[in-house]
Amino acid sequence: MKSILSVALPQQAYNVVIAPQVRTQVGAWLSDRQQPLLKPGQKVLLVSNPVIFKHYGEQAIASLTQAGFQVSHCILPAGERYKTLKSVQKLYDAALANRLERGSAMVALGGGVIGDMTGFAAATWLRGIAVVQMPTSLLAMVDASIGGKTGVNHPQGKNLIGAFHQPRLVLIDPQVLKTLPAREFRAGMAEVIKYGVIWDVDLFEQLEAAERLDQLRHISADLLQSILTRSCQAKAEVVAEDEKEGGLRAILNYGHTLGHAVESLTGYRSVNHGEAVAIGMVAAGQIAAEMGWWTEAECDRQLALIQKTGLPTHIPAELSINDILETLKTDKKVKDGQVRFVLPTRIGEAKVTNQVEASVIRQVSEQLQAP
Amino acid sequence: MKSILSVALPQQAYNVVIAPQVRTQVGAWLSDRQQPLLKPGQKVLLVSNPVIFKHYGEQAIASLTQAGFQVSHCILPAGERYKTLKSVQKLYDAALANRLERGSAMVALGGGVIGDMTGFAAATWLRGIAVVQMPTSLLAMVDASIGGKTGVNHPQGKNLIGAFHQPRLVLIDPQVLKTLPAREFRAGMAEVIKYGVIWDVDLFEQLEAAERLDQLRHISADLLQSILTRSCQAKAEVVAEDEKEGGLRAILNYGHTLGHAVESLTGYRSVNHGEAVAIGMVAAGQIAAEMGWWTEAECDRQLALIQKTGLPTHIPAELSINDILETLKTDKKVKDGQVRFVLPTRIGEAKVTNQVEASVIRQVSEQLQAP
Ligand SMILES: NC(=O)c1ccc[n+]([C@@H]2O[C@H](COP(=O)([O-])OP(=O)(O)OC[C@H]3O[C@@H](n4cnc5c(N)ncnc54)[C@H](O)[C@@H]3O)[C@@H](O)[C@H]2O)c1
Ligand SMILES: NC(=O)c1ccc[n+]([C@@H]2O[C@H](COP(=O)([O-])OP(=O)(O)OC[C@H]3O[C@@H](n4cnc5c(N)ncnc54)[C@H](O)[C@@H]3O)[C@@H](O)[C@H]2O)c1
Ligand SMILES: [Zn+2]
Ligand SMILES: [Zn+2]
Repeated sequence: MKSILSVALPQQAYNVVIAPQVRTQVGAWLSDRQQPLLKPGQKVLLVSNPVIFKHYGEQAIASLTQAGFQVSHCILPAGERYKTLKSVQKLYDAALANRLERGSAMVALGGGVIGDMTGFAAATWLRGIAVVQMPTSLLAMVDASIGGKTGVNHPQGKNLIGAFHQPRLVLIDPQVLKTLPAREFRAGMAEVIKYGVIWDVDLFEQLEAAERLDQLRHISADLLQSILTRSCQAKAEVVAEDEKEGGLRAILNYGHTLGHAVESLTGYRSVNHGEAVAIGMVAAGQIAAEMGWWTEAECDRQLALIQKTGLPTHIPAELSINDILETLKTDKKVKDGQVRFVLPTRIGEAKVTNQVEASVIRQVSEQLQAP
Repeated sequence: MKSILSVALPQQAYNVVIAPQVRTQVGAWLSDRQQPLLKPGQKVLLVSNPVIFKHYGEQAIASLTQAGFQVSHCILPAGERYKTLKSVQKLYDAALANRLERGSAMVALGGGVIGDMTGFAAATWLRGIAVVQMPTSLLAMVDASIGGKTGVNHPQGKNLIGAFHQPRLVLIDPQVLKTLPAREFRAGMAEVIKYGVIWDVDLFEQLEAAERLDQLRHISADLLQSILTRSCQAKAEVVAEDEKEGGLRAILNYGHTLGHAVESLTGYRSVNHGEAVAIGMVAAGQIAAEMGWWTEAECDRQLALIQKTGLPTHIPAELSINDILETLKTDKKVKDGQVRFVLPTRIGEAKVTNQVEASVIRQVSEQLQAP
């Protein structure tokens, strides 16, 4: 089983490889081809966090070393609260200590936090060196690793500091998901469902056909391969059409408008990103149904799929709807004061709009609040 | 007197405007045209240092405010040693405090230090917002403000952290040079002479024809306008052909190979950048003559011009030639262990080579050392 997708960007296309065991083949992928992605003997800085490095670090290093690269590594603490300029500074120090040059590369082995920071450090070291993404969380596989958004948080806001910097290669090994905590797995599934709703009706139907989706061990290797391939394909297609988020790419924010408000009001703690997106998708679906853009039947199918995945579908009872409406207005995606929503029109298709009335948002939010 | 040049980059072209008093017209330039560069009412963060802000800050702010922009400012300490991530963090804080959005802009009013930091902050705030360069030093006018290189220093190396981010507009007011210290003026003249040697024989001959070049007050407004226009034109042409320094752009490093070694060995103190480049150009010229690439006669004309400008032409006596040769080997521009030199072939033309024998570098360096 192996899928190779291409992210067809005008400046430089790159591959997304989805294959069991690919984590042990990174060296070969970078060297062993007619057009090697890195020159022989180049320096490679592998970046990871302690947990992930313990599981998969040595294998990746062995593969890179065997391919003749000069490998060093830098381990950053795990967790969103370390996605800071300070961590990036540690990467700069490691880049300097290991004398990374223009032809060198960084390899991000980890979830979206490691991927975003490594991408940003690579974007800004010597004004840009190569980065290879080896995502290890489901969310990073289907979302963060593809598309070139990199960055860190400002103490007062998420992802405020960053750069666009496309990876040279993305290597996805489904097997590493075995060690991913179940809650993180479900969080990633929220983005997978998102692709089904906004882009790929076949993916949606495959998910519907599965008996269980709440834990990895109930999912066959074939289905997992298909989920990863279709999700990455969706992201790759959208990104290729709109690299810098001028238009189409905005549909990837499906579920994220209200989702971000829920995340930020719960202090990024009790509800994680995927859970917030799940709630946001339920809300956006009901807004779309309310406005007559989407059928009730399809809206119900989405709800059932989200429930089957074990993701939440209610706004936490402790949040005030007024606060949510206020927070929506300060969202980064607000344009000229109008809140921007992505709404499905049918399964596999969505549209961006800033025409949702505040009263509709309020009504749907109130309905969605847990009793 | 007014020159408008275009930096014709494939993705986005931008203008370089050279005109007396343009510092008081920045607001109009950003707003008052058929295609405004910034939307009406947008937020603008003006960045400067205390000295420059005292001279020109209020005028720029008045012009921007009058054009209807919401203007805030951030003053960073003066000097190369503050060209750090820490200063950039202050810019991020100001961007947040003033709620800069995707459609907002930063305006850099200052020398290369302010320009590089502001450019980097703009490159990385919300993954890139607009930046306008208003260079106030001669070096920043003819070099740093054009071409999109931005960045800061790492404690252990210059310009190691950065990004490519082209400005939306460059506004050059020759009148602000009146307050520039004479030594800084001469430093900028080194880059002007560089463009004469590698690109523009007419510029070179204009400089030769001038009676004095060592101080601004001996230079007519016409000659100054011409010097600025031709230098910016040279930089713009080279950058337009090779935005990311893949090939041609390397010739802009004329004088910088040995120059950087001299700068770094004197600890960036006793010899400033322009002075080091002047010494480096003398060295590169003599290497070219030694190798038969350049005539002795033209080499002498360059030497005379550098002397007339009041720039140094000798390697400081306290530097060891062995140290210089060692430092050359660790230069960023070293490729596969070969030191890369830019050598003139005739006035107005230069070539990049890594074929200079170490013995020739040594011999020329020894000859050039102050007794
Ligand atoms: N760049 C983009 O386009 C983009 C898109 C979406 C999200 N993001 C960013 O991604 C981040 C979230 O990513 P995430 O959900 O992967 O978070 P994460 O990187 O914090 O990973 C989640 C947790 O899972 C652990 N983990 C990851 N893979 C594992 C494995 N195989 N085995 C055991 N443990 C493993 C991590 O150590 C961490 O504790 C956020 O910072 C978000 O802003 C970026
Ligand atoms: N981005 C690029 O392509 C590029 C190219 C060349 C140099 N640079 C960078 O530029 C920096 C050097 O630039 P610089 O020489 O302008 O240094 P600078 O910015 O430190 O300015 C030199 C001094 O002159 C003062 N000054 C500037 N304009 C003045 C004015 N009109 N009146 C009074 N005082 C004034 C400054 O306050 C400072 O003290 C370096 O950091 C270098 O790396 C960047
Ligand atoms: Zn998301
Ligand atoms: Zn220079």
